Order: sequence, then C-alpha cells, then structure tokens
Amino acid sequence: MSVVESSLLLRRDASVAFLQRRFEQLIHDVDQVNGDAAWACTLAENIATGGKHVRSLLVHVGADRPARVEATPDIAVGAAFDLLHAAFLVLDDVIDADEQRRGSPTIHAAARQRATDLHGPITRDDAAHYGTSVAILVGTAAMNEASRIIIDAGAPADTTVQLMRIFHTAITDSVVGEFMDIHHSLPGVDASDDLIRMASRLKTSSYSFETPLISGAILAGRDWAVPHLTDLGRTIGSAYQLADDIQSIFAPSSITGKDPAGDLIRGRATPLMALAQHTQQWPDMVAAITSGDLDHARTLLRHSGAVDKAHAEAEGYLDDAAAILNTEGLFSPEARTTLTNVSTYIRRSLDVAR
Amino acid sequence: MSVVESSLLLRRDASVAFLQRRFEQLIHDVDQVNGDAAWACTLAENIATGGKHVRSLLVHVGADRPARVEATPDIAVGAAFDLLHAAFLVLDDVIDADEQRRGSPTIHAAARQRATDLHGPITRDDAAHYGTSVAILVGTAAMNEASRIIIDAGAPADTTVQLMRIFHTAITDSVVGEFMDIHHSLPGVDASDDLIRMASRLKTSSYSFETPLISGAILAGRDWAVPHLTDLGRTIGSAYQLADDIQSIFAPSSITGKDPAGDLIRGRATPLMALAQHTQQWPDMVAAITSGDLDHARTLLRHSGAVDKAHAEAEGYLDDAAAILNTEGLFSPEARTTLTNVSTYIRRSLDVAR
Repeated sequence: MSVVESSLLLRRDASVAFLQRRFEQLIHDVDQVNGDAAWACTLAENIATGGKHVRSLLVHVGADRPARVEATPDIAVGAAFDLLHAAFLVLDDVIDADEQRRGSPTIHAAARQRATDLHGPITRDDAAHYGTSVAILVGTAAMNEASRIIIDAGAPADTTVQLMRIFHTAITDSVVGEFMDIHHSLPGVDASDDLIRMASRLKTSSYSFETPLISGAILAGRDWAVPHLTDLGRTIGSAYQLADDIQSIFAPSSITGKDPAGDLIRGRATPLMALAQHTQQWPDMVAAITSGDLDHARTLLRHSGAVDKAHAEAEGYLDDAAAILNTEGLFSPEARTTLTNVSTYIRRSLDVAR
Repeated sequence: MSVVESSLLLRRDASVAFLQRRFEQLIHDVDQVNGDAAWACTLAENIATGGKHVRSLLVHVGADRPARVEATPDIAVGAAFDLLHAAFLVLDDVIDADEQRRGSPTIHAAARQRATDLHGPITRDDAAHYGTSVAILVGTAAMNEASRIIIDAGAPADTTVQLMRIFHTAITDSVVGEFMDIHHSLPGVDASDDLIRMASRLKTSSYSFETPLISGAILAGRDWAVPHLTDLGRTIGSAYQLADDIQSIFAPSSITGKDPAGDLIRGRATPLMALAQHTQQWPDMVAAITSGDLDHARTLLRHSGAVDKAHAEAEGYLDDAAAILNTEGLFSPEARTTLTNVSTYIRRSLDVAR
C-alpha cells in the first residue's frame, strides 16, 4: 500500500466502521422486540462488513476529494453501497440455492438450521421455508436500510434526491438483470450471447461500479465527470464480471467463500458459459457436469477456448479502463493509483484458471 | 357517494391511473429484454391496481387540499403507497405460502405453473423454486419502483427527502413486524399478546395508515397535523387489522380473494388468535384445525369469546378514531366524510363473523 492512496483507503475503512456502528444500533433496537431478528441482523452484518468493500471505495474514488477535506456524507453513502451489496447477496443466495457465503452458511441455510435446533418440532420443509422467509426479510430490510443511510447522510436535499434517484435506478437494473439471469438459466431457454451479457451488466456492473463512482462525483460536485465515470464503471464492471465467472468455477471455496463450481452445477447462463455453449466441447461438458465430474468439466471448459476468450475480453476492458482513468484532469494521482490497483486485482483473479 | 367527498376519490382514481400508466411504460421497456419479466410485471400490475386503494386515498385525505388546488405530487405519492402495498402482498404470499391473491394465483404460484407449461423439462421442485425466485424479484422491484415514484413525484427537494425518510421507516417497520409474525408462528414459540399486537401494528398499520396520512400532510405543508394523523392512523389501522384477521378466517374466498382460513390452517399468531389461545376452547380448536374441520374450528373460535373481544376492541379503536377526526380544524368536511366511510367499511367487515 503506497502512501498516496491512503486517504481513500482510510475513507473506505470509515465507511465500514460506519456500517458496523449502524448494525450495532440496529441489533440493539431489534433485540428489544425479537431475539431471532437480532440474530439474523448479526448474520447480515457479517456479510455486509466482510468482503473487499470495493463499492464504498469507488464512492470515495468517484468523489476524489483532497485528503484535507472532511467527507462525512461520502462515508455514509459508501456504507450504503456496501450494505446494498449485502442485500443482493442474501437474496441471490436464496435464488441460487447457495449454502455458503463468505465461508459461512448463507442466511437461509443458517435460519433453517436454527428453526430445527431451537424451535420445533418442525418438519424439514417447514424449516426450509422459514429459512427462505428469514432471508427474504433480511435482504429486503438491508436494501431498505441502505436507502435510509443515504437519506440521512447529511448531503444537501437536492444532492440527496439526485443520489436516491441513481441508487434506486441501479437497484432496478440489478433486479431486471437477475430476472433475465434466472430465466436464461431455465431448461429450454436459449438466450443470445448479447442478452446474457446484458443481464450480467445490469445485474452487477450498474450498482457495483457505475453508480458508486457517479455517486461520489455528485457528492463532491464533480458532475462533469459523470459520463467518464459511467464508461469507466462499465469497463471495469465487465472485466470484474468475467473474472468472477472464472473464479466461481475454477477457484476453491477457500478463496470464493461460496459453494464450489456452483455456476457449473446449476447451469447458470453466465457470459463465460455463453462463450462455451456453441463449442464442440459443450455436449461433453454438460455430460460431465451431470455425472458430477467437475474436474473434467473444467478441463473441457478450458479446451473449448471459452476461458481464453473471456480472459482476452476482460483484458481488453481493463485496457479501456486504463485509458479512461488517465483522462487529463479526471483523477488525482492517488485515485488513479487506487483504480489501477483494483484493475490489477481483477487481472490476478482472471489468472486463476491458467 | 356524496358530492362533498368526490374530489378526494377523484384524486385516488388519478393515483390508480398514474400507476397504470407507469406499469404500461415499465412493461413496454422490460418486454424489450425479457418477455417473462414483462409477463410478471402484468401480474404485479393486477395486484397493484386491484383492491380498494385505501393507501392512496389516505394520502389525499392527509393532504386535504381544496378541490380547486392541483395536487400533482400527491397523485404520484398516493400511487407509490399502493405499489408498496402490492410489493408486500407479493412477498407475504411467498412467506405465507398462499396460492390465491385477489382471486387469481399468487405470483409465485403463477410463475411456477408457467415454468412447467412453457419451459422444461423441469422438475416440480425446480419449478417451485423458479416461482419463488420470480416473486422475490417482482416484490423487490415493486418496492424499489415505489421509491422511484416518490423521488420523481415533483415535490420540492426537502419535502422529497422528508417523504423518503418516513417511507423507508415504514418499510423497516413492516419488515420487522413480518419477521416477528413468522417467528411467533413457529411451533414452540409462545409470544406474549403484547408482542403479537406490536407485530401486527408494525407490519400493517405503519405503512398502510399512519405513513400515507402523514405523507399527505407533509406534501400539503400541514406539518402541524402530523401528531394527530399518527394517532388517527394507529387507531384506524388497529381496527382494520382486527377486521382483516376476522375476515381472513370467516369470510369466503369470493370476498377475501385469498385462500380460505389460511391464518387458521397455518397457525398464524394474529391478535385474534392471541385472544383465543388462553381460552378453554383452544386445545379443541387446534385439534379441529389439524383434522381439517375448519367449520368446527370457526365455531369454537366464536364460542371462545375471542371474536366478540376482537369486535369490541376494534369498535373502541374506531370510536377513538372518530374523536380524533372531529378535532377542530384538522379536516375539511369532505375529508371527514371520507374517513368516516373508511371506518364504516371496517365496521361492516367486522360483522362477517356475526
């Protein structure tokens, strides 16, 4: 970590600390009326305050304020994006039926277990249904609390309205993208590569890269930077998504914190799989997945050329991002360094399948 | 319908028309990228634009603007509350595993069926999971679109921030109430009457009565009315909730549009059931429900005295509401008449078990 980037990383850390304090208060309040709800909040806190906090960092990069300037509203808005991310993870884990997240049981899995252990007698189905219900409520509450954090961030009213507008637009993007994703993954639905890419971008890039960057710029009065930041967010986001697809399949659970090869097993229509589905290896890959031979499926996926193509495509996006972030006057040296480090992180994740 | 109340009812109708136009645009846009998502939006539209639109009406009552005054932002904000209600219905139907809503299949049931009919081959479990996922996404999207409607309603920025603050507080209230509700309904959990009532109030009264009334007052610059409207919303809301509990058990599906006696069958911890659970009829009631003899369970519930107690309690709330709404200078005659009609409607619903 170099000295020049430290003020942005300190602000990201302040966003995380803000979120922890917020959860502390929330858990205290909720515990007055329901111990199970307070317990569920602690699980949500673990998800929201774990991870790499790329989204809060990008808010501070988008604002790119000098180190000497106080950035109180930015701290809260950064926290709101990290919390929104947690909300989507909780709901996505229900939708993808994932059992692990950040190396712990997902919320629906943990609540299902708790219903069996502490309450009862309860049937397996009823416990599973309770688990799903808890996760739906936690996800909804987290999304809603993220909005409240922005509302109360202390920015001027017109700035707050502008932030809320793009925040809620990003949520709609993500939900539409997720809907396309689950529909494209249904048996018998043969979505085009373009639609699979669009779903992926809507689902992740909008709320994770474009909107945090733009929100920072709006907070700092850098509205002129918004078109550049939109392009930058989109390119980094697209590269990130491809890296994440590759990691989901090739990296061990100890790195992803998720079920191993979940995307493969569930036949999810990711951009990576879209690159593979018209190759000659595809029928054998499907057979290997069906028979549970994931290592062979991974080998076939490599041989299909899809991984190399995804790799090259992602590198292309990162080159585009590098060009944008060097736009004259767009960023301070420290913001540029921070974004370059994010790109480097994505490049390294891409290499997991090599 | 008397002449004096017509301007408020016209505004409610304008809110409904606003919502229909919004859905039209949304369905058009979504259909460009995914036909299934557009189809799901039409289901959400049916839920959001059906019903009695009490919430949008209460926004207009809370504002209580003279008939000659344009109330453009109020129209949108009213629509937002109706849409929020639809969002909660969609998610609640997943959580309560209800199959019918407004006399049609619930969204998760309809999407499950669609996955079986149009896609496939798909297992029963996978189709059910797809149905649940679709409903989660539709509910989340509807909640989010409700926020966007308020953001874009055209009120001044500081008013918009104030409205967003109470709107999102109401969502938190409802989610916490729903969490308490499902937890209280677990086997082996014996919640106090007070907690069951609190859950019920948080879940429904806040977003359905208190917050719409207050939002209208804020829009019209009637901030001084807020404490009165909070009390009014709470009393009407409490009466409504008891009437709804009674209707859920005693009214036929043709009136409720829901599964018959769902609350009984699922052992839900409603305030009405809390009144019954310490009576001597309770063990026989549980046995009757378990054996599927719902008519006998209803008879026992009546004999327990719980229905009469709920009735008397609700009447008490409505008397309190009548006193508040007659507060000098609080409402115009037409707003008073409209609220009296809402109370009368609730009184009639209470009588279904008599």
